[in-house]
Amino acid sequence: LQLFTCNSNPGLAREIADHIGVPLGDAEVGKFSDGEIHVKLDESVRGSDVYVIQSTCHPVNQHLMELLVMVDALKRASARTINVVIPYYGYARQDRKTRARDPITAKLVANLIETAGADRVITMDLHANQIQGFFDIPVDHLLGVPILADYFIKKQLDDVVVVSPDHGGVIRARKLAERLEAPIAIIDKRRPEPNVAEVMNIVGDVRGKNAIIIDDIIDTAGTITLAANALLEQGAKEVYACCTHPVFSGPAIDRIQQANIKEMVVTNTIPLPEEKQLDKIKVLSVASLIGEAI
Amino acid sequence: LQLFTCNSNPGLAREIADHIGVPLGDAEVGKFSDGEIHVKLDESVRGSDVYVIQSTCHPVNQHLMELLVMVDALKRASARTINVVIPYYGYARQDRKTRARDPITAKLVANLIETAGADRVITMDLHANQIQGFFDIPVDHLLGVPILADYFIKKQLDDVVVVSPDHGGVIRARKLAERLEAPIAIIDKRRPEPNVAEVMNIVGDVRGKNAIIIDDIIDTAGTITLAANALLEQGAKEVYACCTHPVFSGPAIDRIQQANIKEMVVTNTIPLPEEKQLDKIKVLSVASLIGEAI
Ligand SMILES: Nc1ncnc2c1ncn2[C@@H]1O[C@H](COP(=O)(O)O)[C@@H](O)[C@H]1O
Ligand SMILES: Nc1ncnc2c1ncn2[C@@H]1O[C@H](COP(=O)(O)O)[C@@H](O)[C@H]1O
Repeated sequence: LQLFTCNSNPGLAREIADHIGVPLGDAEVGKFSDGEIHVKLDESVRGSDVYVIQSTCHPVNQHLMELLVMVDALKRASARTINVVIPYYGYARQDRKTRARDPITAKLVANLIETAGADRVITMDLHANQIQGFFDIPVDHLLGVPILADYFIKKQLDDVVVVSPDHGGVIRARKLAERLEAPIAIIDKRRPEPNVAEVMNIVGDVRGKNAIIIDDIIDTAGTITLAANALLEQGAKEVYACCTHPVFSGPAIDRIQQANIKEMVVTNTIPLPEEKQLDKIKVLSVASLIGEAI
Repeated sequence: LQLFTCNSNPGLAREIADHIGVPLGDAEVGKFSDGEIHVKLDESVRGSDVYVIQSTCHPVNQHLMELLVMVDALKRASARTINVVIPYYGYARQDRKTRARDPITAKLVANLIETAGADRVITMDLHANQIQGFFDIPVDHLLGVPILADYFIKKQLDDVVVVSPDHGGVIRARKLAERLEAPIAIIDKRRPEPNVAEVMNIVGDVRGKNAIIIDDIIDTAGTITLAANALLEQGAKEVYACCTHPVFSGPAIDRIQQANIKEMVVTNTIPLPEEKQLDKIKVLSVASLIGEAI
């Protein structure tokens, strides 16, 4: 078994390597002067079961291409199996046509990864479970809920309600609620008329409770901020938020800073650069979870 | 027949559209807040023969992904054939293993383009002709030499010698030389010992002549600058340089400015942003050449 990393998440890769007690393989993933990626494997992989760790987070196209070129190099160097570990799978929200003539980029990416030569995929909290079916190779789909749940169990909050920010997230919310032995509530977004702001209607009782909103991805943090306000208006005591993948693009950090959210709990599937680290953001590691799956 | 462009070279795409008298199709190729590409086709392509124009120049990974997502969208929108026009094919210099365990990214990219759903490729001056064979779909391979030759013929330089900057470029140099009815010379780079600067030895007679160096790609302009000096040392009267693909990365523009090169003639397969436009750089258009091939 050999482990390699590209450049998206070297910190997590090192943690995983420590967890399973195998050093990271010697390889360089760099750029030529014109920005083309070059990969140099500095050790033999012939006949070996190789794991490559790479999240396809921002800058997504570069990180995806690093992964594909790395898989190409490993394949041509006669690795026995190539297992790609993609803690955060970019383009997952392009998983279906929402309008006529939309691409389905999540499927395209699956095809690209297979074409490059991957034999198996390990990933976490896909935006849609259907993405597993986009692959013709085995996909191990890990969930962040147990890690998030453990954190909140240790916190010993009382009177918890777990909140799904939309109907698509109810199953995830229920999983967290079961572990916390708490009820759930659902935010029912509706746009009364076109071009009128959305109304956030809360289904379930949140009055006097510690609300924990759970989502798979938090991107610009718009939804979560509005949801927190709606929960407080309905009498929630405190609002916590958590997710597996902290994409945190655009105004996200400013919004989180200002939002009426006591704590934002995320995992390290996507690394947070220094300027995105706030006191109220708590990062949990998925290294042991992924280490077990390897 | 419908024509679309992504974002790498909209100027050339418009010229091609003008040349063949078909307007550019209505489509948006943009980015979400997190940097993921989105493509929106604003007109039907059902049953149509579609051409997509996109050079995979810097930023190469983004431009490649734009092309792949566009092809995916066209395929799912039931285009009859999808013809990708790639005036500059990025990653072409990764066309073979130069060391053990190298990737062959030019082949990987060919596979990715086919996987996305392209039916035919039109491209120009591939760094290696072998790249045509990396595809299982038809590849039309256009050459910049006639365009460059026409320019120098109009200039009516006398006593011309065409110079190949390395042994790999001799066939290209000979094609230009034939059109200019001129002899050729070859630069024979050798490194006498490891870590000693290369020596540029010139095979052929350049004394008192107007030397025209021709290459497919000029990237950092290191080779071309040294070659110009070597030619002048051997008594060449003036040195001109030309290429199809002006990659011009890193120190290229400074070097070209300072080099003993009278004129640098390139084509618009890669657009030159304003800060790379120098008086001594002349840009010729490949629009009619590509227009004819479509
Ligand atoms: N990277 C992205 N950033 C923001 N929106 C996206 C992104 N990718 C896809 N979408 C849009 O998100 C919607 C799907 O999200 P969802 O309804 O939560 O599954 C579709 O309308 C997509 O066009
Ligand atoms: N984008 C690039 N920039 C600079 N060198 C490259 C690039 N891509 C490949 N190469 C290297 O260029 C060499 C091949 O160039 P050539 O010998 O001219 O075919 C190989 O050693 C490659 O590793």
